[in-house]
Amino acid sequence: MLEKLKQQVFDANLALPKHNLVTFTWGNVSGIDRESGLIVIKPSGVEYETMKAEDMVVVALSTGDVIEGKYKPSSDTDTHIALYLAFPEIGGIVHTHSRHATIWAQAGLPLSALGTTHADYFYGEIPCTRKMTESEIASNYERETGNVIIKTFKEKGISAKDIPAVLVNSHGPFAWGSSPDNAVHNAVVLEEIAYMNLHTRQLVPQVGVMQQELLDKHFLRKHGKNAYYGQI
Amino acid sequence: MLEKLKQQVFDANLALPKHNLVTFTWGNVSGIDRESGLIVIKPSGVEYETMKAEDMVVVALSTGDVIEGKYKPSSDTDTHIALYLAFPEIGGIVHTHSRHATIWAQAGLPLSALGTTHADYFYGEIPCTRKMTESEIASNYERETGNVIIKTFKEKGISAKDIPAVLVNSHGPFAWGSSPDNAVHNAVVLEEIAYMNLHTRQLVPQVGVMQQELLDKHFLRKHGKNAYYGQI
Amino acid sequence: MLEKLKQQVFDANLALPKHNLVTFTWGNVSGIDRESGLIVIKPSGVEYETMKAEDMVVVALSTGDVIEGKYKPSSDTDTHIALYLAFPEIGGIVHTHSRHATIWAQAGLPLSALGTTHADYFYGEIPCTRKMTESEIASNYERETGNVIIKTFKEKGISAKDIPAVLVNSHGPFAWGSSPDNAVHNAVVLEEIAYMNLHTRQLVPQVGVMQQELLDKHFLRKHGKNAYYGQI
Amino acid sequence: MLEKLKQQVFDANLALPKHNLVTFTWGNVSGIDRESGLIVIKPSGVEYETMKAEDMVVVALSTGDVIEGKYKPSSDTDTHIALYLAFPEIGGIVHTHSRHATIWAQAGLPLSALGTTHADYFYGEIPCTRKMTESEIASNYERETGNVIIKTFKEKGISAKDIPAVLVNSHGPFAWGSSPDNAVHNAVVLEEIAYMNLHTRQLVPQVGVMQQELLDKHFLRKHGKNAYYGQI
Repeated sequence: MLEKLKQQVFDANLALPKHNLVTFTWGNVSGIDRESGLIVIKPSGVEYETMKAEDMVVVALSTGDVIEGKYKPSSDTDTHIALYLAFPEIGGIVHTHSRHATIWAQAGLPLSALGTTHADYFYGEIPCTRKMTESEIASNYERETGNVIIKTFKEKGISAKDIPAVLVNSHGPFAWGSSPDNAVHNAVVLEEIAYMNLHTRQLVPQVGVMQQELLDKHFLRKHGKNAYYGQI
Repeated sequence: MLEKLKQQVFDANLALPKHNLVTFTWGNVSGIDRESGLIVIKPSGVEYETMKAEDMVVVALSTGDVIEGKYKPSSDTDTHIALYLAFPEIGGIVHTHSRHATIWAQAGLPLSALGTTHADYFYGEIPCTRKMTESEIASNYERETGNVIIKTFKEKGISAKDIPAVLVNSHGPFAWGSSPDNAVHNAVVLEEIAYMNLHTRQLVPQVGVMQQELLDKHFLRKHGKNAYYGQI
Repeated sequence: MLEKLKQQVFDANLALPKHNLVTFTWGNVSGIDRESGLIVIKPSGVEYETMKAEDMVVVALSTGDVIEGKYKPSSDTDTHIALYLAFPEIGGIVHTHSRHATIWAQAGLPLSALGTTHADYFYGEIPCTRKMTESEIASNYERETGNVIIKTFKEKGISAKDIPAVLVNSHGPFAWGSSPDNAVHNAVVLEEIAYMNLHTRQLVPQVGVMQQELLDKHFLRKHGKNAYYGQI
Repeated sequence: MLEKLKQQVFDANLALPKHNLVTFTWGNVSGIDRESGLIVIKPSGVEYETMKAEDMVVVALSTGDVIEGKYKPSSDTDTHIALYLAFPEIGGIVHTHSRHATIWAQAGLPLSALGTTHADYFYGEIPCTRKMTESEIASNYERETGNVIIKTFKEKGISAKDIPAVLVNSHGPFAWGSSPDNAVHNAVVLEEIAYMNLHTRQLVPQVGVMQQELLDKHFLRKHGKNAYYGQI
């Protein structure tokens, strides 16, 4: 079942080491088939080098139950489920411990929009979640990780479509997109921005955000109804 | 038409990922045939891995119209045109978001000449443009990006031949040269200098510029009529 | 003799350059067969490119004598022996001069737990040893290097199982694990943490340690009797 | 003539890009045959990818004249000659603009001994030369570059054997050794130390030098008559 989505999720998982976003098995990508309400996700702790498309695990969005697959799904599956439920427009999710995004997550700081690289993909600041409470960690930790992301977006009044990534405090990044492949694409950009912001701040500790009009220009020339970038 | 130049521009574009100057499609190289007044440039948003020499787009310098090619030209074409018109001595232009040059562009700071690596290629400080105005961004943005570069060189009294690169504020670098290949060569050096200056400043925050006589010596032993570097 | 362990130790040594943990011959991995009381270790100063599994040296845990092998064992063999004697639960040890772990060792600073990457493998701060005394350096230097590690763990009341690595002051890291392969795994994580902590501190110089409850959660979901990460 | 030395010098030059010490043609290695008084050195500005062993140029130590070769020798040949004349114990020299050593050269700062990686190869601080005078730059610049290195070693009372490298102010590193290959080996270590010291200082801005007794221990266990490292 869902052979095409399994292949997409598998390919997107393999793209993580290719883009130097993961060490060992520290990352996972999922994709969703909205019609059937089924998620396809990487198995937990399986190495990229020996993994096959058929090893992907099928999980029900509504219950979290494994529907198909010989392996246990990623330990972060409940975070993916929470995000798919809250953000109906997304089709793929990726979690990594990519070096520089994780550095900002460990610092507990958001990524400000400092240049057009950021503006081409993210329509403003990429937030960092608050620290989780003791009870959130003690109860259903992975589900609560998703919930704290969702609350962050709600409180800041930002949409998952405009800002397709987040930093989880003391942990690392999640990114998403229209498909598993697009989610990985955004995770690569996020890591690039995290590297550049780290060193921009080294040069100018009090660096301010970029001009709003430049942010608008770059985001909107690639996204939305008046986009003119690429072969469209 | 212009098969030789298309091949050169294509090769120069492929040199960008080879030298780690681009992520995804974030870069473009063009070349010009001054005699016919035609520019050859990378198509917009096409991936390096599948791109062919025949996909390069031919554009008229005078009008910006596409003369040949099945794809739309790079969204930055108007910036290239502005530079070719203002700097008649150059034969190739490259734009990237290479990491360290972009960091300086985001910081809004120029690259001072701190050592002989810089002096071998750039005869003094590599400038960073001022921020663009709201109206420059709102009107013909890409053409105005070129204009702000040209104004920067004019106001500082520097020549495009002596300083074959610039940082566009909050955006990233443009570099140029006698040919598409030479432009990429200068873009590689620019990125190397940007990395080294970042960390030189980390060691000595108030580091001054290098001695003028050493700058003269190194630039002039590689450029101009008394050059003696290489097999000349 | 011990052909299987020789192969494991050989493979683990080759994993060091693969993971960019060593330059030239600056690293060594050993493994122990607790039953026979024999250690298998890399020969001293032999290059990775030409080394064979049969070049591994067999050394007696009790005396340090070479039992088999045409080469001299690693000059750090006595440090390995001291650690195997003090930490009976470990099966493999690795020493490298990996860049970022060595930077912290040169700074004489421990690696605080700042995020879940750390918590997944190390149950708290990774200590840095005190400087060695003149007499420790003058006598059996390599054995004393082991002893100062052991004293550090004893004084801080930490176990080699919970914290499978240490920074040796002005020198570099040692890591260990249940097997040679697992020791290398921990050395890779250590290097990753060292890189991330360096830059987290650059962003937030006074960054505090992560929440104890998050440290508990991540370490214990991968280690101990209630672990649920991976295919267990 | 000197076919074996040509091959060694050629191989050592190719080792530079392999160890990421050079961009384009920014580096050169030479070797000397002390008996005949002849130096073999890389040709000037020739690309590594197409260079052959037979392209190496033979130059007389006494006069600097080209004795054999179709190409011009490296523009830095006179610096090499000065060093070979002043340091009779060395057999190979390498010059690069390797990133981190160049950063320290641009900062005008020496590399203090901060750990055992340094102590294994360099018996104390690696000096940075003073800035060159206007007349040194205006006259025989490359020869004077060598002279300022030699003066630095004389004034500080250090030997080329104990400290086989130097940073040339506002320029970059030179390293040397018993052979062309050994010189490259030392250049690799120099670059590694330069990287690590940069970041050690980031963690501890006032970091002091390592203990003298530890410096002695590590240098002398690898060098001199009581050495016991490796298969000796």
